[in-house]
Amino acid sequence: MAEQNLFEKDLPKVPANYVPLTPVSFLQRAASVRPNHTAVIHGNRRYTYSEFWARSCQLAAALREHGIQKGDCVAAMCSNTPEMLELHNGVPLIGAVLNSLNVRLDSDTIAFILDHGEAKAIVTDVEFSPTIKEALAKIDRDILVIDIVDSEFSGSSQFEKLGKTDYESFISTGGDALRREPELINTLWSIDDEWQSLSLLYTSGTTGNPKGCVYHHRGAYLNALGNLITMQLGLDSRYLWTLPMFHCDGWTFTWGVTAAMATHVCLRKVEAQAIFDSIEAADVTHMCGAPIVLNMLANAPAAIQKRSSSPIEIATGGAAPPSAVIESMEAIGFNVTHLYGLTETYGPATVCLPQQDWPDLDINSRSGRMSRQGVHYLTLQDAQIYNAADMANSPNDGESLGELMIRGNTVMKGYLKNASATDEAFAGGWFHSGDLGVQHDDGYIEIKDRAKDIIISGGENISTLEVEEALYRFPKTLEAAVVAQPDERWGETPCAFVTLKEGETATTEEIIEFCKSRLAGFKVPRHVVFGPLPKTSTGKIQKFALREEAKQRAAEAST
Amino acid sequence: MAEQNLFEKDLPKVPANYVPLTPVSFLQRAASVRPNHTAVIHGNRRYTYSEFWARSCQLAAALREHGIQKGDCVAAMCSNTPEMLELHNGVPLIGAVLNSLNVRLDSDTIAFILDHGEAKAIVTDVEFSPTIKEALAKIDRDILVIDIVDSEFSGSSQFEKLGKTDYESFISTGGDALRREPELINTLWSIDDEWQSLSLLYTSGTTGNPKGCVYHHRGAYLNALGNLITMQLGLDSRYLWTLPMFHCDGWTFTWGVTAAMATHVCLRKVEAQAIFDSIEAADVTHMCGAPIVLNMLANAPAAIQKRSSSPIEIATGGAAPPSAVIESMEAIGFNVTHLYGLTETYGPATVCLPQQDWPDLDINSRSGRMSRQGVHYLTLQDAQIYNAADMANSPNDGESLGELMIRGNTVMKGYLKNASATDEAFAGGWFHSGDLGVQHDDGYIEIKDRAKDIIISGGENISTLEVEEALYRFPKTLEAAVVAQPDERWGETPCAFVTLKEGETATTEEIIEFCKSRLAGFKVPRHVVFGPLPKTSTGKIQKFALREEAKQRAAEAST
Repeated sequence: MAEQNLFEKDLPKVPANYVPLTPVSFLQRAASVRPNHTAVIHGNRRYTYSEFWARSCQLAAALREHGIQKGDCVAAMCSNTPEMLELHNGVPLIGAVLNSLNVRLDSDTIAFILDHGEAKAIVTDVEFSPTIKEALAKIDRDILVIDIVDSEFSGSSQFEKLGKTDYESFISTGGDALRREPELINTLWSIDDEWQSLSLLYTSGTTGNPKGCVYHHRGAYLNALGNLITMQLGLDSRYLWTLPMFHCDGWTFTWGVTAAMATHVCLRKVEAQAIFDSIEAADVTHMCGAPIVLNMLANAPAAIQKRSSSPIEIATGGAAPPSAVIESMEAIGFNVTHLYGLTETYGPATVCLPQQDWPDLDINSRSGRMSRQGVHYLTLQDAQIYNAADMANSPNDGESLGELMIRGNTVMKGYLKNASATDEAFAGGWFHSGDLGVQHDDGYIEIKDRAKDIIISGGENISTLEVEEALYRFPKTLEAAVVAQPDERWGETPCAFVTLKEGETATTEEIIEFCKSRLAGFKVPRHVVFGPLPKTSTGKIQKFALREEAKQRAAEAST
Repeated sequence: MAEQNLFEKDLPKVPANYVPLTPVSFLQRAASVRPNHTAVIHGNRRYTYSEFWARSCQLAAALREHGIQKGDCVAAMCSNTPEMLELHNGVPLIGAVLNSLNVRLDSDTIAFILDHGEAKAIVTDVEFSPTIKEALAKIDRDILVIDIVDSEFSGSSQFEKLGKTDYESFISTGGDALRREPELINTLWSIDDEWQSLSLLYTSGTTGNPKGCVYHHRGAYLNALGNLITMQLGLDSRYLWTLPMFHCDGWTFTWGVTAAMATHVCLRKVEAQAIFDSIEAADVTHMCGAPIVLNMLANAPAAIQKRSSSPIEIATGGAAPPSAVIESMEAIGFNVTHLYGLTETYGPATVCLPQQDWPDLDINSRSGRMSRQGVHYLTLQDAQIYNAADMANSPNDGESLGELMIRGNTVMKGYLKNASATDEAFAGGWFHSGDLGVQHDDGYIEIKDRAKDIIISGGENISTLEVEEALYRFPKTLEAAVVAQPDERWGETPCAFVTLKEGETATTEEIIEFCKSRLAGFKVPRHVVFGPLPKTSTGKIQKFALREEAKQRAAEAST
């Protein structure tokens, strides 16, 4: 061992100068330094930061009293309600792992996840009782079930409670404990390593069993700060929860909004009317949502499109927002920021950072720039397009297609109980995103397709995203998706699936003509299918189903 | 050993998901994602982020070529020039430790520091050649000397260069190396542990030898983000360097401004005219400075007080700004944020966070609130008033005097070669600040005095800061300081030293009468001494010298 240098001698980590990074510290601090500020708004409910922290600690104490230990998994089947925010703090506080479930999942998948993650408890909103009841019947053990009966739930009055206790009664038992022993808060705190597991989130694989991404405290702390900085959340911000908190823990905004000591505005239902009402009622400044949410807002009837007092910052991600949608959103008072990320990267990993000269560009050029995935987050180390075969960095020529690779502290620990998938995902020192793209001369990354979605026609790569972008420009299009259709001559050709806006009609020829004016000939769809698009539980278009349909159509056509 | 839980199994740190936190990553990223933005302005010089990074890498390569290794110390005797910003990145890039020297120090102290820190090289601005020449003569070894001949240096044309090379020639040798081997940048990067030492900063002790605070990469990364968030630095910010970069590495704003990818506006001389000129020329948005800088700006002739297009955010710290100064600053277009910290805490550790109801308070109440030290930074774990004797938390009653204790990731590694001082400073799991204060019912900390400055009169504690605050309210006061004077009857009584504004006259009686209207009787100074105040090299008033004088006056009076 080399001699320790002068600057490393007698300078160890001690409690005064080293503490594990954890996003739970944000709420603890907010309760201490801004106790009376409104932390959470939900319908007529209001919680200050002091109350938000107290309730989270009560939840933690109650879970501990019911036998939940460090390293245990607590599942959550919740809408965007205050309870879900409390779960994001109370569960990790005692060193347990929060497993947020996608509320659109079926009972088979949920049963699989509860078994795989070995959940010891589940907190479930009564809206989802039917699914959870079925799922619980499918797992062969008893777990602690806590029902949320939300004040804003407007569904059937005949809802069923599945557990022995509801959420409010449950946390009040923790309240009793804290009143008896106020020092309990210190003994509850079980975060002693920032690499400790924080949460478990299953990817919504379109085929096969989902994989469980494990997050750690360090990564969530950093990504939350990255969000705060990127979206410029401040003391006066009011963040509307149009993004499900079960998506990558709300892209870590669950903690980022708290770090800013801003106000969380909850929302049960992502519907245009409810969103615009909340924007008006709470004077919302920030929100996030998948492109489909932007689409919904942009296409809402003008009568319900209420505007905020100043532009609302809206971050979108998941897929590139079609530029037509960006334009429409700007027209109704939103400032769109395009983020990109995956469940494996705590949500946002890149941001399409606006450059100084962009405001001078015409709207088409600017939308083109803005629909790129952009550059890596401040709190991430790097994102690059690599040739996966030899792990060589692709040239920044805007043309060389490669795989997006990501590296840094906001990449998951790995997949639960799946060392081989983890090793594969992290091969060569980078996380392999599975997305194909190019890097432009300004270093900006542009995703062209999922690795499995790319169309190869006569030896040429066709980005389905590029074709979809053209289809979205067609004024009558509500939604569009493009997949490969087997073709005897070309190998594959693009097949378009289009949903038209309500009341609109169009022909295949009309759409093909439109595309010809915007795309190279070989990229123009050969076939157009009209109708609704099949979606996954997270609202992603199920391209595998469309590929099946396109394949079948090709087979039928050739017979 | 306990069985590893489910969530810690097969989920190790790997290069894809773990990299050391380092503030150097901010510049690397800015150069990559905002290459053409103006990073640094200095007189007529302009550097983009791409150039700033290239020059820092050239510096790193040149240092490496000249034998500087990981763990070696590089000293810097610099004004606030671009070279100093480059040193803050190029030196740590190769794992070396930057030792910024206070340019006001005498040659004996500098010789002590160069010996104690074992500097292998020094980069020195020719303005300080006389002092450094003397210091170098006092150490018994040869070190690499690099002269900065700054374009903005307007001193004697007869300046002396001390080394064999000047800065520009030196980094051009590194430029040659990088041109020959572009891959050199990767091999230069020598940051492999975030606990690695980053910089060395000597405290300006008023007596005895200075102590060397060692910073690590993790702490600087976090404090820089804390500054960015607290001061809301953004892509369009322009930060004026009125705070010396040798003070706690510019309170880590050296890296924080770069993290925001904003613009550094350099400044050689902290003089009112030059500051207002820079504010106007660069449309400055943010700056920092000791209260004495605010005092200088507030008392500048109206003719040179140019205003910016919108309020300038100015952070101050070191001592509480007298409320009269806060009021004057607001009147000329500055928004004052009060920070508090020490060299041991990378500069800012607490912020006097404005609460929602403060804007409604009258200016006196509001200034009173604003002059408190406030609450701990987002990136710090905690700051509390403790009774140092039994380490019990003092009640938040605004009266119980205790010592301010600080804990978190932005506390130094320790004092170089001084394990006993380090242990003492970190006793009981907290950093002992040496400052005495109270905690109010809202949790806000208010420093009443340095432990050694407090006056005990007839068994009552008197805060010298409180008496000074009253003296600053006297309209003719430019500067004031209060120390204990030995007293046969009371043990100690307050003795005031006052500098009047230019052209003003006042009597002892006038000042005592003024104080009586604002202070409890026992707190009113018994003696007032008029004249200039002795200062340390960092501009702090030398209270030990005033205490000596007060003691002597008491002795003379009693004989």
